[in-house]
This record gives sequence, structure tokens and C-alpha cells, in this order.
Amino acid sequence: MTQITTPLRLGIAGLGTVGGGVVKLLQEHAGMLAERAGRPLEVIAVSARDPSKMRGFDLGDIRFEADARNLLNDDRIDVIVEVIGGSEGIAKEVVEGALARGKHVVTANKALIAHHGLSLAQMAEKTSATLAFEAAVAGGIPVIKALRDGLAANRFHQIVGILNGTCNYILTQMWERKATFDDVLKEAQAKGYAEAEPSFDVDGIDTAHKLAILSSLAFGCAPAISQVKTAGIRSVTLTDMQFAAELGYRIKLLGIARLSEAGLEQKVHPTMVPASSPLANVHDVFNAVVAEGDRVGTVFFEGRGAGEGPTASSVVADIMDIARGVAYKPLTLPVASLKDAKPVAEYLQRSAYYVRLAVIDRPGVLAEVTAVLRDQQISLKTFLQHSHAPGETVQLVLTTHVTTESAMQKALGAIATLTSVKEPPHVIRIEHL
Amino acid sequence: MTQITTPLRLGIAGLGTVGGGVVKLLQEHAGMLAERAGRPLEVIAVSARDPSKMRGFDLGDIRFEADARNLLNDDRIDVIVEVIGGSEGIAKEVVEGALARGKHVVTANKALIAHHGLSLAQMAEKTSATLAFEAAVAGGIPVIKALRDGLAANRFHQIVGILNGTCNYILTQMWERKATFDDVLKEAQAKGYAEAEPSFDVDGIDTAHKLAILSSLAFGCAPAISQVKTAGIRSVTLTDMQFAAELGYRIKLLGIARLSEAGLEQKVHPTMVPASSPLANVHDVFNAVVAEGDRVGTVFFEGRGAGEGPTASSVVADIMDIARGVAYKPLTLPVASLKDAKPVAEYLQRSAYYVRLAVIDRPGVLAEVTAVLRDQQISLKTFLQHSHAPGETVQLVLTTHVTTESAMQKALGAIATLTSVKEPPHVIRIEHL
Repeated sequence: MTQITTPLRLGIAGLGTVGGGVVKLLQEHAGMLAERAGRPLEVIAVSARDPSKMRGFDLGDIRFEADARNLLNDDRIDVIVEVIGGSEGIAKEVVEGALARGKHVVTANKALIAHHGLSLAQMAEKTSATLAFEAAVAGGIPVIKALRDGLAANRFHQIVGILNGTCNYILTQMWERKATFDDVLKEAQAKGYAEAEPSFDVDGIDTAHKLAILSSLAFGCAPAISQVKTAGIRSVTLTDMQFAAELGYRIKLLGIARLSEAGLEQKVHPTMVPASSPLANVHDVFNAVVAEGDRVGTVFFEGRGAGEGPTASSVVADIMDIARGVAYKPLTLPVASLKDAKPVAEYLQRSAYYVRLAVIDRPGVLAEVTAVLRDQQISLKTFLQHSHAPGETVQLVLTTHVTTESAMQKALGAIATLTSVKEPPHVIRIEHL
Repeated sequence: MTQITTPLRLGIAGLGTVGGGVVKLLQEHAGMLAERAGRPLEVIAVSARDPSKMRGFDLGDIRFEADARNLLNDDRIDVIVEVIGGSEGIAKEVVEGALARGKHVVTANKALIAHHGLSLAQMAEKTSATLAFEAAVAGGIPVIKALRDGLAANRFHQIVGILNGTCNYILTQMWERKATFDDVLKEAQAKGYAEAEPSFDVDGIDTAHKLAILSSLAFGCAPAISQVKTAGIRSVTLTDMQFAAELGYRIKLLGIARLSEAGLEQKVHPTMVPASSPLANVHDVFNAVVAEGDRVGTVFFEGRGAGEGPTASSVVADIMDIARGVAYKPLTLPVASLKDAKPVAEYLQRSAYYVRLAVIDRPGVLAEVTAVLRDQQISLKTFLQHSHAPGETVQLVLTTHVTTESAMQKALGAIATLTSVKEPPHVIRIEHL
């Protein structure tokens, strides 16, 4: 190990919360980082749209570029740190341009990796550049490195995660304060925990991006965002949370990737998990990942999934890997060795279910519903009907044992045609994690 | 990145549970591991004391050596996997011999690293050999790599862990089954969770070894086992567990390393933690680590801390790093850059306390005890006395706010002299983690 003392030279594309956090971290811990990485980490240029914006740190003699693409032709830059965001446009252009020139890339951009991970990994392989994205999933939790290095000797069965802090904050606050989705969303927007246009988070898209990346690393396939069946949390009601609690569950937005004989299942949806499970106890903006490997069993990771400090922590860890000469294939396997993920046909997917029905309270309703379940060979696990109000609409809640998606879809279709049933059924999957 | 296709050649020293698990894992996942590591991992020789012992796997044409030292002079061996154990003797001799010859070493031996980490790191540096020990701490949880790589951009404040599965199993079972330490220990011995001579585990020594290793990596000092103040779990009673629960706590054996202005505090002791904290909910043989960094905040890791599969998972992950050409300094920093850990003088150490006193129930006892606390400027937080039996011995329980070790030691000394106090005080530290 010869000591490399030339600095690693960085160009930071983007000076928002994350980019600013990276610059501050590199400045404030310069000595410690150089010691741990074996060489100084030096920011020589940054880019952002607005040079005049106050950013809470001093750029000193760091060059400022208004156009990130100008960083590409600076031969002194070894590493481009892309923290602009977005799967297309300038972020993609800068990352592709850097890799094509053999510059290493560190990015926090989950949308970019989820959509273009394969082609970017190909470009990186071609020029022997590093493409690192620890910060793209679960913020400060080093879960990408764990799947790629620390747990690399395992054949994985399943990866499950709470991967979006905004959703987890909303669900936590709804339950703790008995508030509606809309009220908590508004408050989260006021606090800066949710965007003005919250769809990316609350509709599960961000979780799907992150899940596709974790799946790729765990199961040796290209990220396949189109295979991730995605549902968000807008449909989660306090009523369902209350019934969930009564049944011993909590509702969380989970990303679930599961490998079986049938193929690879990737899905994002609100999920009931046992109240005593570690995932149920991940609160507010925290993220968590559960990895299940054939040798290690279950490993659980929890930490902050977003924010300046945690994201900068992961971005700079990737930079330190490059400084130390640690080189990995972006998707762990060489691109040529990646397999196509074989999605599991929906009718073969299996889950237990919670179903809430608004029904007219009259004799025979339960018999009708249970007859439908019987016809689909679905076993009932629990049944709850709190109020008794003949002729009125009441809530009827049931949970099932594990069954197939196709059986459940058929049953729900049949239930919807019953004259006693007054609303579309409220359905939430249950996972015993 | 040129593709290296020569196999990495391994010599496994020790074929107990861990060594056998490593050989089985390498055989059963050979193709997958070669693909992920970029080259085959080939066991060419093993050593164990008894060649005839049935080991549940076929050695095929792997050479068998009765003396591990014979592996050292085989020039074909790139990596010695030391899974013999023990801080001295043959394990140390084999590791030193390997490093001196420039062979890489992967070991699961916490006692060896805790006692000789500095000198071994020096030897490894001299010959540019890798010395890797992910399996030495927290079994299958990749916490060594997390501190060294994934969280490397953080200045750490504190590392806390449940690091011994035997102790955690005993404490969990005592509480769940309302059983005594002795009864659960006997059962754990029958199940193979505890050794016939359990002192290493139940007296906290194993936890201290692991804590010294984590401290070294987090705080940039040599492992300093002599600085770890160590107490085990033999003194934990069901009575204290019951009072703990009533006060909202659980009792866990924790290793705690904390850096402050005063220096580095390293200690192992039974600890009351809030019942709602993640650490309180780590059950049975599971291990967990909480790392607190200045950027990432709190990161929590949980998984299996021992056993064939989890330990082999970590050993083989280290082997894969070597196969991939990933080289780290054994203690993260070069030996020359390691600082001396400055221990915190005992009188400056701070903690909150639980104190249980067996006292004669008569007027004025509480006044005597609280006067002692007042004299030491210790603030009482809670007070419990369940039974009222004038003239009889009753249990008096109190908890304090954070105070200094010296104040508490003086107070305990004074309390012990009170004529109403019939037994030495039962004292457990409280941490709000």
C-alpha cells in the first residue's frame, strides 16, 4: 500500500440542501477525512443555478459555475458529485458526461439510478469509472454497502424497507395525533418535510425507486422500476389505523422485494405489520431496511433517511471509497452477469389481507361475505363488527390468512356486487415481518 | 478494471462451528461468490486437531493439516482464515506468521484483536497484508465495515451495543419466564448457548473485547481492553427486573464507548434502558449496535451475533473484499496516526442510577437516605416502596438524575453505614438511549 498524498479533486454539481451539506462536511472535517481516507478531499469547483443565493458556507477559492456541464471539461476534477436530482435533464447529462470521460461519479439521485442504472453502469464499466450512490437509498444508513460488501456472502430471500421519510412521518403523526392524511400533509409541507407537490413521496414513487435499486443489488438484476407495483398512502384512513391497532398491527408504507421459485416480486404499498415488529416502531422521518439472507438470517438497519447531515454522510463515504482506491462495479455484478428479473405474475402473488366493508347491518350479510371467501378458498382469520345498528351502515372488518392475489381480487369483485355493501372495500395487505 | 480470474486461495485454520460454516458456505455458494467477488474463492487446505471428527461436509481434495502452522509455509495460500480462537497460543502464532509472510488474514477472533490489535496492525502494514475481522464483533451484522466505510465521514460521539448473545439470551429468558440467573444459565448451557465455563460471556469479558474493537475504529485509537471497565450479569436479579419494568425500563448488558471533552469512556455493565428504546427490544441471542455520528445522527443495527451462518457470512464477506482487491488499514487509520485513548477518570464519569436498598421499615429511613443524597448533591428522580411492614425488612427503590460516579460512590458508602440498611445496595446504571 503506497501512500497516495495527491488530493482527490471534486466538482460538486448542485448546491441545494445536500450539496451544501457535502461542502460543509468536507470543509469542517477536512483533517479527519484526509486522515481516514489517506489523502485530502478537495472541492475545486461547484455549480448551481443561482450564484448569489446565501448558502451558509464560504466557497473561498472554489470555482463557481452556473452550468454544471462546465465541470465536465475540467481535467483536474477526479470526481463529479451529482446532487441536482431528477431522472432526466441536466443531472443525467452531467453523470453520463462524467462517466464517458472516465470521471468517477457519486450521486444521491435515486430516480436516475432506478431509471437508468443499467446504461450508466455500462458506461462506468467501459471507462473504469466508479458510479456510487449510497445516498440514493435510506439517507445515512449504509445499506447499499451492506448489501454489496458486508452481506455479500448471502443469497437473499427478501428485502423490505421503510424508504420514504415523508410518508413515515405522515403515517406516524396521523396515528399519534388521530389526525387525517390531509391535515398532517399540510403540516408536513409547512415544516418542509413534504414538497408542495407531494405526489412523488405520498404516491410511493420515491419508495419504488429506492426499492428497485436495493432489488438490483440483492438479486443481481438491473433496476426495473416498471416492475415495481406501486401504491401510496393517500388511501390510508384513521379508521383503518384504529382497526389495525385493535388487531395488533401498525400501518407502514413498505417497499417489499421477495425472491421465490415463482420469480421476483417488487411492490410498494401501505402494509399492516405486527405492532411488536421493529418496522412498526420506526417513527417519523426515520427509514429502516430489513434484509433476509440465507446465512445471516434477518438484519435490521434503522436511521435517518433524508436531510442534510445524513445524506452528506453517505455522499462523503462514497467519496472516501474512491480516495482509498476501493472500486466496485456499480451494480455489484458486471453488467454482463446481471440476470433479467422475472416478475411474479400477479395471480401468483401471495399475501394476507385486511378488508373493511361498509355494510347495511342486517341478518345474513356476514354469511354472504363468508360465502364469497369460501368460494375463493380464502380462510378468514379474524372478524370484527363493533356497532350493531339494524338497517344502518356499519363497519365490518375481516382479516384473512395468506392467499393469492387472484383469489382476493375475485372475492373483492364478488363482494362489491352484494347489495348490502355500500362502498368499495378498503383493502390493506398484511405482512408478518 | 482488469478482470482477475485466478482464484483466491484460502487456508482455513480451525474447523469448529465457524470454520465448518465457512467451508460449507464457500462450497455451497461457490458460483455466486465467484461472480460477486470477480474470481473464484478456493479452499486449498484446512487444519484442525482431530481429522477424524465428522464435520457435516466433504473436504474432497482439500489438504488436511493437523497443525495450523503448516499452512503458513504453503506459498500458494493467499489468505489464512483464523477461526481457532483465543488471544494467545496457536491462533496468535498463526496470525502473526501469516502477516509476517505477507499473507492476508481474516479472523473471527475478538480476544486476539482486542489484546493485540495494535501490534498485528503494525505487522500487516509492514507487509501490506490485509487483516480483517468483521466476524469478531456482532456476528453477521456488518458493523465493522459500517464504522470504517459507510459512516466514515462522521465524528462519532458514542457507540453502544448488545454484543454478547449469551448474556442477552439469559436476560431475555429471565424476564420472560420469571426465572433466576442460575436456572436460565443451566438451560442455556444445555442448549449450547452458553459454555460449561460461562465466565467469559456472563462476566462481560467478551463484550469488553468487542467494545474495545468498535472503540478503536470509531475513535481512532488502539484497542485498549485494559481501559474497559467491565461488569457482567451474575448480579442481575428478577427483583431488579421487576422494579425496572415498573419504572419503564428493561435491563440489558451494554457495552458503551463515549467520547467527550473529558476523554473516552469505555464500560460494560448491566444497564436499564427505556422499555420503548430499540435496544430494549433486542431479544434472545440477537445483537445490536447503536452508532451516533455528528452528521448521520443515530444509526441502529440489529442481527444475529453468533452461530455458524452469521459468523460465516461475515468471514466470507471479508474474504470477498480481499478477492476484489479492496484494501483497508486494519484499524482504519495507519498505526502511526492512532491516538492514545485518554480514559475518563472515574470520578468524572456520569450516569443516572437505580438503587435498591433492603431497609428496616421504620420512620425516618427515607429521611436518612435522602439526606445522604442531598449531601452529595444527587437529585432523586423516582422513589418506590411497595410494602409497608413496620419493623420488617422492605425494599426501597430509588432512581436518580444524572450525577457523577464519585458522588454516587460516596453516597453508597454513606448509605451502607446506616443501621436501617440491611444489605449492600443493589445498583444499576440507567442510560436514556
